Amino acid sequence: MTDGGIARLSLNQKTLNRYSLPAAVAECVRTGIPAMGLWREPVQEYGLTEAAELMRSNGLRVSSLCRGGFLTTDSPEARAEALRDNRLAIDEAAELGAPCLVLVVGGLPDGSKDLAGARQRVVDTLAELAPYAERQGVRLALEALHPMYCADRAVLSTLEQALDIAEPFPENQVGVVVDTFHVWWDPKLFEQIERSGSRIASFQVCDWLTPLPADVLLGRGMMGDGHIDFPPIREAVRRAGYTGDTEVEIFNEEVWSTPADEVVDTMIERYLHLV
Amino acid sequence: MTDGGIARLSLNQKTLNRYSLPAAVAECVRTGIPAMGLWREPVQEYGLTEAAELMRSNGLRVSSLCRGGFLTTDSPEARAEALRDNRLAIDEAAELGAPCLVLVVGGLPDGSKDLAGARQRVVDTLAELAPYAERQGVRLALEALHPMYCADRAVLSTLEQALDIAEPFPENQVGVVVDTFHVWWDPKLFEQIERSGSRIASFQVCDWLTPLPADVLLGRGMMGDGHIDFPPIREAVRRAGYTGDTEVEIFNEEVWSTPADEVVDTMIERYLHLV
Repeated sequence: MTDGGIARLSLNQKTLNRYSLPAAVAECVRTGIPAMGLWREPVQEYGLTEAAELMRSNGLRVSSLCRGGFLTTDSPEARAEALRDNRLAIDEAAELGAPCLVLVVGGLPDGSKDLAGARQRVVDTLAELAPYAERQGVRLALEALHPMYCADRAVLSTLEQALDIAEPFPENQVGVVVDTFHVWWDPKLFEQIERSGSRIASFQVCDWLTPLPADVLLGRGMMGDGHIDFPPIREAVRRAGYTGDTEVEIFNEEVWSTPADEVVDTMIERYLHLV
Repeated sequence: MTDGGIARLSLNQKTLNRYSLPAAVAECVRTGIPAMGLWREPVQEYGLTEAAELMRSNGLRVSSLCRGGFLTTDSPEARAEALRDNRLAIDEAAELGAPCLVLVVGGLPDGSKDLAGARQRVVDTLAELAPYAERQGVRLALEALHPMYCADRAVLSTLEQALDIAEPFPENQVGVVVDTFHVWWDPKLFEQIERSGSRIASFQVCDWLTPLPADVLLGRGMMGDGHIDFPPIREAVRRAGYTGDTEVEIFNEEVWSTPADEVVDTMIERYLHLV
């Protein structure tokens, strides 16, 4: 169903969580996947310069770097540290040639119930980071996480909220992520995707499974294993003007214990037929 | 912090899930709680007429009956059965003197990914039930459930969506439930509570815990054990014009294995100091 075969498919590194960066790169080379979404920790482990070189020498695009964020802290020291670390993440994204740095904004600080305050700090901290990101040629990509992560991971809960925060910034400074797992339930999804227009910095797909596993962070499934109808969402994202990669990012114990080549073959087949 | 002591506190029967209706009633009588939220199954088990008489003879109000709904089925037979069962639930609410019947609208039908279709069927089925409910003097109360239940329990996911569905109906036919557990994360919560005005048919409270337990249906905590800041929500509901009861409805294995008198004493203390 997807036009253009896998020319715009990207393998997010988390989907092969137990494999090294070179092993994931090798899977892309084997199958012809032209892009990868990278994560900071395994890139740092492998070496930033080496990772950038590995991608280039294999002709792979970096579709995004995950992740910056955690901007909701309420102490000046923690805030300074968050700013420092986010600038570093922006530098890393720039060196990798990633067009965007995905931001998971953080949950409520320990012991705090001040949700409005945490949300305001995201806005304030973003204002300090965005010009720096622009100078480095990296777009900050606000990721709305599913509302079930609001307390402990991201107080940014809907695409509408992400756009409300992003819109005061120039488009090349702050964009948004559309991740099917996080937003598929939203009654305003299609209206807000249309509103997003060229703010869409990243499009990520995986499925919503029931029942949710005991660790809700690992509830993301392979496309087709759950409840999400992908084509209308993919079409809406395309109509909004997004021409970038579609990243497959799966956090799932069963996927992670499957051999990499099986996962990638299934992913390609599902992507071609279901997304 | 709550004005008027416990004059508007209601014990939802689910909070004492392992106890009989008379045992829950006895707890209300012991502590002076003036109202209860009832559930259909234990009421049917005890006997509908007997339950109504038990409440009346003990001077207890019924603040709501849980629950009707499950209106998303896509076969004509299942739809007819859902209508029949909901009319029965309305009759039961009328006999109990409950001002509203809480509707949990249902998730995606088995194997279906048509979320928009399921949502439309809620609207269509509601149109058939609402006039009947009015004739019986019972208001239908649409309950937005947390988006993590969208696939398998309720395709109604936000207060805004509930109001969009409710507003075409007369106010005395269709109202909405504000349940802190389901809506606390919503960036538009306060705006939508204000919009609700006299549509608010029921106000339910319990807390959001982290980590979520393995069975996410049982993640509702005693007020104060989680992340929700109740007073601003309670104040917003009051300012919107709601003068009804505040129901405490907790689904939680630990609460359920605690002796009833301890649960109710803690509930009253937390209600007075945190809600």
